[in-house]
Amino acid sequence: MKDTAPHLCLLGTGLLGASLGMAARERGLAGRVTAWTRSAEGRAGCARAPWCDAVAAHPEEAVAGADRVILCVPVEHIPGLLARIHPHLHPRAQVTDVGSTKEAICAAAARIFTDRDHGTFLGSHPLAGGERTGMAHARPDLFAGRTCLLTPPACPADPRTEADLRAFWEGLGMRVHALSPREHDTWMARTSHLPHALASILCAFLAAEGAPQEVAARTGPGLLDTTRVAAGDPVLWTGIFRENREALLSALDACRGRLDELRGLLAADDAEGLCGFLRKGADLRRALDP
Amino acid sequence: MKDTAPHLCLLGTGLLGASLGMAARERGLAGRVTAWTRSAEGRAGCARAPWCDAVAAHPEEAVAGADRVILCVPVEHIPGLLARIHPHLHPRAQVTDVGSTKEAICAAAARIFTDRDHGTFLGSHPLAGGERTGMAHARPDLFAGRTCLLTPPACPADPRTEADLRAFWEGLGMRVHALSPREHDTWMARTSHLPHALASILCAFLAAEGAPQEVAARTGPGLLDTTRVAAGDPVLWTGIFRENREALLSALDACRGRLDELRGLLAADDAEGLCGFLRKGADLRRALDP
Repeated sequence: MKDTAPHLCLLGTGLLGASLGMAARERGLAGRVTAWTRSAEGRAGCARAPWCDAVAAHPEEAVAGADRVILCVPVEHIPGLLARIHPHLHPRAQVTDVGSTKEAICAAAARIFTDRDHGTFLGSHPLAGGERTGMAHARPDLFAGRTCLLTPPACPADPRTEADLRAFWEGLGMRVHALSPREHDTWMARTSHLPHALASILCAFLAAEGAPQEVAARTGPGLLDTTRVAAGDPVLWTGIFRENREALLSALDACRGRLDELRGLLAADDAEGLCGFLRKGADLRRALDP
Repeated sequence: MKDTAPHLCLLGTGLLGASLGMAARERGLAGRVTAWTRSAEGRAGCARAPWCDAVAAHPEEAVAGADRVILCVPVEHIPGLLARIHPHLHPRAQVTDVGSTKEAICAAAARIFTDRDHGTFLGSHPLAGGERTGMAHARPDLFAGRTCLLTPPACPADPRTEADLRAFWEGLGMRVHALSPREHDTWMARTSHLPHALASILCAFLAAEGAPQEVAARTGPGLLDTTRVAAGDPVLWTGIFRENREALLSALDACRGRLDELRGLLAADDAEGLCGFLRKGADLRRALDP
């Protein structure tokens, strides 16, 4: 990869892809930016966007000559898109993605990236985003101050890819941590997919209890925070849950065990036990505040 | 009650009590403000506070001659405190509280406020607060724009008490809704105590999975929002959960049913079912945003 002004190619230009284009351009991490996205409307949006130099009608064209290719499409479409672009990649191309699950994607990449003639792949997961998806909500500061998880090794093996990719995300203002794809998925099941599932469960329960107007009129700010993530795109999250099915099932089961524990303490009116349970959670939560 | 500059008495001057003193003074809803709070340190804080005219060593003294008395102590202490102050109340005194549960408190008040010689009681629950409790975090704008739930009837029956109390909370910038004590507790079990329980369950689960530093380094903003309420005072929330035990147990059971439903859809890898479940929650959550 060239040291300066590399050619960045973005495949998928929703909230994450478009924000990446803005941020990389603003911070001088990309010279040329090419883009492809599935919908014609999205491609027209790219053509008007100041961060985008060229829009391609097909992903194969978009990646031609690119130094860094970032796949910003829903997780279930990433393996297919990797297979599709692979023959068209420049040998120096470093390919990554922003998917919320990593094991299946990295396993697919290992099957596809087997020679040194068509670039390298290394999975990324920037912990940034929002309930409001789409290019219209993109912003260049989406990544600054957030964490990015990298899931080495690169395929085919190449230490430079990890160092370059780490420098790229750090250049966007992110803190970078590396862990294996499997560790990543287990971790995300517990700290992201499970919280999302609980927020959705709570909202599905509330939807059965009253009209949204009634809920909104009679509730405090705590409920809004607790359930915020449940407003996320159901299609996107169905894909994430399915990709990380085993780990999420296991997290849900462990969490259900905790629910039963709390229920038991409450049913027994065990004041000391209840307080101890709540204190354990409060101690952890207070330690999470920046 | 006098039309202007009534004498307000606050019993308990933590986050809510002290914020009430500031807000009522700032908005001209109180002429004289007297206060009592359990700890000597808290009483010394009141003596220094510009919103407080006089601090009493005992609640019986604090309420002497007061037009409006507001109990801002943990829910489990409210019935005892009502019984203690009752003989000392002026006949025109309107008494209320800010407790998060209402059925037990209002039932206790109905047993205590039986004659017209010692004022009236009507329960309130301003949906305002925060994880950071104590007088040090008090602020005059804590109530503005929030909802306050009133739980009539007043005891002994007195239509003026409800009108006056409604005007008081509205004067602080709140939207006021009235519902029965039982409806209140069922509603709060579902929309506040259950979300708190789920956030605590999630945090207790995470505490078993890794050190807080590790969790903090590798998580996104979604987890922080989802779990924010779990940082609340464990002692305070143990009292709330116990006071509202039956309704919370029933909400936990219904929620567990939803958890099992989502788990079943995921185990069956039912994409359509999963997406429908998440969409139901997302629709409700999006409708809650102001």
